[in-house]
Amino acid sequence: MDKLAHLKEIVSEIEALNEVTGLLSWDQQVVMPRGAAEGRGYQSGTLSAMAHRLFTSDEMGHLLEDLRPLAVQMDPDADDARLIRLVDREFQKRTRVPASYVAEFSQVTAVAQPVWEQARAKSDFALFRPHLERVVELRRQYASFFAPYAHVYDPLLDDFEPGLKTAEVQQIFNTLRAQQVELIRAITAARPVRNDFLLLEYPEQTQWDFGVDVITCFGYDWNHGRLDRSVHPFTQGAGMDDVRITTRFETNRVASAMFGTMHECGHALYDLGIDPAYKRSIMGGATSLAVHESQSRLWENLVGRSREFWTGYYPHFQSLFPEQVGNVDLDTFYKGINKVEPSLIRVEADEATYNLHIMLRLELEIALMDGTLAVKDLPQAWNELFKEYLGLTPPNDALGVLQDVHWSGGMIGYFPTYALGNLISVQLWEKILQEHPDLPDQLSKGEFSTLLQWLRQKVHRHGAKYESQELVLRATGSKIDPQPYLRYLRNKYSKIYGL
Amino acid sequence: MDKLAHLKEIVSEIEALNEVTGLLSWDQQVVMPRGAAEGRGYQSGTLSAMAHRLFTSDEMGHLLEDLRPLAVQMDPDADDARLIRLVDREFQKRTRVPASYVAEFSQVTAVAQPVWEQARAKSDFALFRPHLERVVELRRQYASFFAPYAHVYDPLLDDFEPGLKTAEVQQIFNTLRAQQVELIRAITAARPVRNDFLLLEYPEQTQWDFGVDVITCFGYDWNHGRLDRSVHPFTQGAGMDDVRITTRFETNRVASAMFGTMHECGHALYDLGIDPAYKRSIMGGATSLAVHESQSRLWENLVGRSREFWTGYYPHFQSLFPEQVGNVDLDTFYKGINKVEPSLIRVEADEATYNLHIMLRLELEIALMDGTLAVKDLPQAWNELFKEYLGLTPPNDALGVLQDVHWSGGMIGYFPTYALGNLISVQLWEKILQEHPDLPDQLSKGEFSTLLQWLRQKVHRHGAKYESQELVLRATGSKIDPQPYLRYLRNKYSKIYGL
Repeated sequence: MDKLAHLKEIVSEIEALNEVTGLLSWDQQVVMPRGAAEGRGYQSGTLSAMAHRLFTSDEMGHLLEDLRPLAVQMDPDADDARLIRLVDREFQKRTRVPASYVAEFSQVTAVAQPVWEQARAKSDFALFRPHLERVVELRRQYASFFAPYAHVYDPLLDDFEPGLKTAEVQQIFNTLRAQQVELIRAITAARPVRNDFLLLEYPEQTQWDFGVDVITCFGYDWNHGRLDRSVHPFTQGAGMDDVRITTRFETNRVASAMFGTMHECGHALYDLGIDPAYKRSIMGGATSLAVHESQSRLWENLVGRSREFWTGYYPHFQSLFPEQVGNVDLDTFYKGINKVEPSLIRVEADEATYNLHIMLRLELEIALMDGTLAVKDLPQAWNELFKEYLGLTPPNDALGVLQDVHWSGGMIGYFPTYALGNLISVQLWEKILQEHPDLPDQLSKGEFSTLLQWLRQKVHRHGAKYESQELVLRATGSKIDPQPYLRYLRNKYSKIYGL
Repeated sequence: MDKLAHLKEIVSEIEALNEVTGLLSWDQQVVMPRGAAEGRGYQSGTLSAMAHRLFTSDEMGHLLEDLRPLAVQMDPDADDARLIRLVDREFQKRTRVPASYVAEFSQVTAVAQPVWEQARAKSDFALFRPHLERVVELRRQYASFFAPYAHVYDPLLDDFEPGLKTAEVQQIFNTLRAQQVELIRAITAARPVRNDFLLLEYPEQTQWDFGVDVITCFGYDWNHGRLDRSVHPFTQGAGMDDVRITTRFETNRVASAMFGTMHECGHALYDLGIDPAYKRSIMGGATSLAVHESQSRLWENLVGRSREFWTGYYPHFQSLFPEQVGNVDLDTFYKGINKVEPSLIRVEADEATYNLHIMLRLELEIALMDGTLAVKDLPQAWNELFKEYLGLTPPNDALGVLQDVHWSGGMIGYFPTYALGNLISVQLWEKILQEHPDLPDQLSKGEFSTLLQWLRQKVHRHGAKYESQELVLRATGSKIDPQPYLRYLRNKYSKIYGL
C-alpha cells in the first residue's frame, strides 16, 4: 500500500502540472498580452513534457507492475482499483507512442495550423492538402502503435472517448442518420418560424447581466469560477476548485451569448461537481468529451431552449429588452429560439441539424483513416455528403471542408463526441423526468436545484471513474442510445412546426 | 560544451517553472476566484518543489563539477562564465539547506502569517511573540548552514541582495543616518507646505486614464504587459515577455495610485529591458531587490516627483481635474506632492523619511540575529529608535512593530534593499545628468526615451549578470554610495522648505 501512496503522490504532481497548464491556456485566451505568445508556448510545452516524463517514467512502470495484481484483488468498484486501472490505461497509451513521433506530430501540426488559417481565408484547399495528407499519415501511424485493433479509427476515438469503439459509434449513428435526415426534410418543407426579433440590436451589458443572472440560478458557484469575454467561448480553469467560463457577445445575435453562456455553464457545473475526494487524482476530471458535451447541451438545449424555462424567464427578458421583444409573445419567442434551418457552418447549426454536421465528418474521417478516401478527393466527398444530409451545397471550401480547426491540429476522432453528447443529454433527461415528473413545473418556476442535484449524483461526482458507456448505463439503465434523442426531436419539432 | 548545453537546458526548464509560478501569483492576486486558494497553494508549492529538485539534482551537481574548471578558463566577463557562476552560486545555496529545514520553515511561517494578521488587528504583540521567536531561531539556524561567515546577517541579506555584505550596508547606512535625521529635523521645524488639494475626491476612472497615459509615455510596452487593480500594487508576470503591473486606487488620495503606477512601471521597464538573449536563462531576471527598487524609485521619485515632469504634465492634469486643482498653481502642486512629514507607517512614508523607517528595521534585525536583542524586548526597542529617528512614538504596536508582513513570513534581510534602492536610483540619476545635461529639459517636454535608453544600456539589459555592487560600479564609476542621495535630498528639500 506504500506503493499505492507513492503512485498517488506522482499522480498528484502530474495533476498539478495539468491544472496549471489549463490555467496557462485560460490566461492566454483571456488576459495575456499578445507579445507573450512565444514564451507561453514554451511554458505550456515544458509543463506538458514534465507531466509526460512523470507519467512514463521507469518508476511509474515499476509501481504499476506491483500494483496491477493488487488491483485485481480489490473490489472492482473501489476507487483505488479504478485509479490503478486509469493510471495504467494512460501509462500504456503514453509509453506506446515513441517520443520521436510526438515531436514530429507536434511539429507537423504546428505548421499545419497557420496554413489552414490561410487556406480557409483564401478558400484554397490545395494549399492545405499536403499538410492534411501528412496529418492523416501520422494519425494512421499513431493507430499502428495500438495494433491489433478492431478498427483503425479506434485508437483515435479512444483519445477523446476512452473505451468507446468505432463499431459502437457507427451503430448508434446508423440508427440516427436516416431518421434525423427525414425529420429535417419534413421541417424544411414546413412553414418557417420567424426569429427576426433575435437579430435586432441587443446592448452587450444587458446581455451580460442576463447571462450572469441565469447561470447564477442554474447554480454556478462564483466562489470557484468567473465569467469573461473571449474570442471563442470555452470552459477552463485550474482544477476543480477553479472552473472559469467565457462568452462571446454579438450585439445582433442575442442567442449567441445567451445560449453560449448556458452551454459553458453546463460544462462548468460538471467540473465543479466532481467528488472533492478525487482532487488531484486522475479521477478528478471529466470521463470523456461526450459526457462533458452532454452536460453543456443539457443546460443549453434541454433547459435553455425549453418552453418551461422561458415560461419563468421570459417576463424578465422582456423587461430587459422591451424594444426588441416587448411585443413578441412567449410562443413566438419560443419558436424563434428553436428555429431549424439547414446551414453550412457547424458551429452555427441549430439543435436539430447539428448532428448531421457531425455524422458527415465522422464518415469522412473513417474513410480517410481506412484508406477508402484520399485527401485530394475530400472536398468533393464533403460536398456530396452535405447535399445528401442537409440539402445544401457549399459554394466554396471555406464554407465547406475547410471550416473547422480540428484536422489541422491533428484532432481526428474528436467530432463524434459532439453528437454523442447530444444523445446522452436527452437520455439523461428522459431518466430525470421519469424520476422527477414535476421537473418541468420546477423549471418554469426558475428552480434548478433538483436537476443539478440529480446530475451531481448520477454524473458529476464520479469524475473519470467510469467510462462513458458504464456511466450512462449506471445513470439511465442502458448504454448510449439514440432513441430518446429521436423521440425528443420528433416530439419537440412536430409541435413547433406542426408536422 | 555538451555539458554546458545540458546545463542550459535544465536551467531553461527551471525558468519555465519559475515564470509559471510568477503567473500563478499574479492570477491569485488579480483574477482568481476566492475559493481556489487552497488548490493554488498546492500548485505553486508543487512547481517550486519541482524547480528545487531540478536545481539540486545529482545531475546538476555533476555538471557543475565538470563545468567549474571550464568557467575559470573562460573570459571572466563572458556570458557563459557568468552563467556557470550564477548557477553554481544557487546550487551551493540550495544544497546547503536541508529539506527538513525548508519544510519546517515553510510550516512555521505559514502558521505565523495569519497569527501576525490577528495580532496586528488586535495590536497584541504577545500573540505574535512566540511565532516570531521561532522565526528568528530558524533564521539563525539558516545562517549556520553558511558558516563560516563574517556576520550572522550575511547569509540572510544574500538571499535578497546576492553578494552584498552586512558590513557594506552598515557603512553606507552609518553615513546616511546622521545626515538624514538632521535634514528631517530641519524640515519638521520649517513651515509646512500644503497638500490639502491632494486629499479631495478624484474620480477613479480619470485617475486610471492619467496613469495609463503617463506610463505609456514612459515607454511601458502594452504588447508585453497590462495594468490591473489589486489590493497591494505589484509587478509580476510570466517571464520577460509578459510583465504586468497593478495599482490600488483611493479616491481621496490621488497620489497613491499616481505614484504607485509610476513605481510599478519602473519595475516593469527593468524586467522588460533585459537582453532577450537571456530569456529562460538564470541571467534573465533582475540582479537584486535593491537594483529593482532603484528602477521603481527612479521613475516614481526622480521623474514623477520632479518639477520638470510636472512642468510638462501639469496642464493636462489640471484639465482632467479642474475642480480639484484648477486653482492650484504648479509651484504649490509640486511642493504638495513632495510634502515631508514624519509618520508611523513605512508604506505611507514620503521620499525623505522613508529610509529612516528602513534603517530602524535593519538595526533591529541585526540585533535579533546576533542575539543582542530578544524578541520580547523588540516593541520597546522599536519605539525608542522610532522616537530617535523620526521624533514620534507609536501609540500602539499595530502602528509600530507589528505593521509589516515581512517578519511573519521569515523575510529577515529584505528591508535594507528598499533603502539601497533609493540610494542607487539617485546615484544613477546623477550619472545620467552628467552624460545628458539636457535631460531635465527633455522631461519637461514629456520625452523619456533618452532616459529609458540609458537605463536599458547601463542597467536593464544586463539582467542578473552582474551583482549589484559591480553593476552600480560599471554604470556610475563607484560602488553604492549614499552621497548622491544626500546631495539630492538636501538640494531638493532646501528649495521646497526654504532651509
